[in-house]
Amino acid sequence: MQFTKGHGTRNDFVVVPDLDDRLQLSDAEVQAICDRRSGIGADGILRVVRGSAAGRAGDAPWFMDYRNADGSTAEMCGNGIRVFGRYLVDTGLAEPGRILVDTRDGVKKLDVPPVGDVTVGMGEPQRRPDAKVRIGGEWVAAAGWSMGNPHLVVTDVDVDSADLSTVPEVDPADAYPDGVNVEVVELVTPSGIRMRVHERGVGETQSCGTGACAAAVAVMATRDQRTTYDVDVPGGRLSVKWCDGGQVLLTGPAVLVASGEYRRDRT
Amino acid sequence: MQFTKGHGTRNDFVVVPDLDDRLQLSDAEVQAICDRRSGIGADGILRVVRGSAAGRAGDAPWFMDYRNADGSTAEMCGNGIRVFGRYLVDTGLAEPGRILVDTRDGVKKLDVPPVGDVTVGMGEPQRRPDAKVRIGGEWVAAAGWSMGNPHLVVTDVDVDSADLSTVPEVDPADAYPDGVNVEVVELVTPSGIRMRVHERGVGETQSCGTGACAAAVAVMATRDQRTTYDVDVPGGRLSVKWCDGGQVLLTGPAVLVASGEYRRDRT
Repeated sequence: MQFTKGHGTRNDFVVVPDLDDRLQLSDAEVQAICDRRSGIGADGILRVVRGSAAGRAGDAPWFMDYRNADGSTAEMCGNGIRVFGRYLVDTGLAEPGRILVDTRDGVKKLDVPPVGDVTVGMGEPQRRPDAKVRIGGEWVAAAGWSMGNPHLVVTDVDVDSADLSTVPEVDPADAYPDGVNVEVVELVTPSGIRMRVHERGVGETQSCGTGACAAAVAVMATRDQRTTYDVDVPGGRLSVKWCDGGQVLLTGPAVLVASGEYRRDRT
Repeated sequence: MQFTKGHGTRNDFVVVPDLDDRLQLSDAEVQAICDRRSGIGADGILRVVRGSAAGRAGDAPWFMDYRNADGSTAEMCGNGIRVFGRYLVDTGLAEPGRILVDTRDGVKKLDVPPVGDVTVGMGEPQRRPDAKVRIGGEWVAAAGWSMGNPHLVVTDVDVDSADLSTVPEVDPADAYPDGVNVEVVELVTPSGIRMRVHERGVGETQSCGTGACAAAVAVMATRDQRTTYDVDVPGGRLSVKWCDGGQVLLTGPAVLVASGEYRRDRT
């Protein structure tokens, strides 16, 4: 099985070309591939399928089948889709420029230059209920936003010392019954923030694309701005633009590290 | 740069063919390659060099240049050298059977069948001072053995619950001034043990080739045996044979997972 390994702000993926949608990967096989010691190792797998072969509605030329490392499917991944776009261009499957990629969260627009950072349209943010979050024993106010998935953004705790080792409690407890991602954010320049994130179901991670968007939007909203922010996450730097029309654009690195062949049938 | 990724009992390696000894890998580049998110990811790198090109004394046809993930050199690795041998045979560089591989710890003899587990001669164990080790707040007796590197083998603590999260203290404190590996061992059958290991300078690991040898030898010595033991480590099963002549043979899996090209000069 051919593969490429890549990452965006240290969120890493195994890209598997399967243009004609023939590859069946069981949960166990996804887990084996993503195992960091006995496999290739990654946070997830991005299967590259032609839109016409994937049987999707609409006419996007590509479908991104995202699988988490445990084998479960995910709708979208803001870091993964940039790696997906870089892969399409670097392998010659797509020309640089605007590329439409269908996902389980709908069709996304990518802008992939010949080299360098990739931009993806992340949709329009939606307000969600504010709540209190308990971080390190202390209850703090948080702003609720959705980027397709729910986020609570905290701006008044210390980013470096915040304890994100456990799932943050939320008050009222039923505000986010399906769980919520929590971002702790510090304003470092007039158009720059830094943050850490606790992803629901995962724990603290080095980067979260929707979390970066939610954090930047939450800060811009309090300032009545629609502009572009640098967002420093532990894994690197992202850029978030909130357009006048409402759309949020996420720009960031997408690095292809290695390519080769994975031995599916080894003994 | 061509590479193959492989593992032995979940101790994993990037194998880099460099038959003519031309490749200079800085510490920073080794770290970049071994980074589990932004690189290929591994515990170390095994550079494959022809003995004639490496300028080593003796006439072993191969030299294994082992680098830890931090870039430092290591003398030997009982799990790595099996992967090295499997690589030589699977790529056709060597015929199955006996293969001599030079290392910084001297020439090692490998037995590599066409498929399956690989055996490596690990040399003769040497007695070292017994000492007490503190594990989970409790001082317990430990037997001192060397397999080129020093080990203290403990047989009377519970393997599952033993706390190996910190460096075990040793009494007398100056018994092992350069540090020591600590194995906690449970006898499960007349010829089978299971163990966990704290490697000096690393912490708890899923497997340690010399540690498996030291643990099996320590138990055989108390029983006045020279025989073969199964050794279950968290990463899988190894087999240790203590030969009548004194030599210890380590047998275990060596699995090649993926092969391809690493992008050294990516931007």
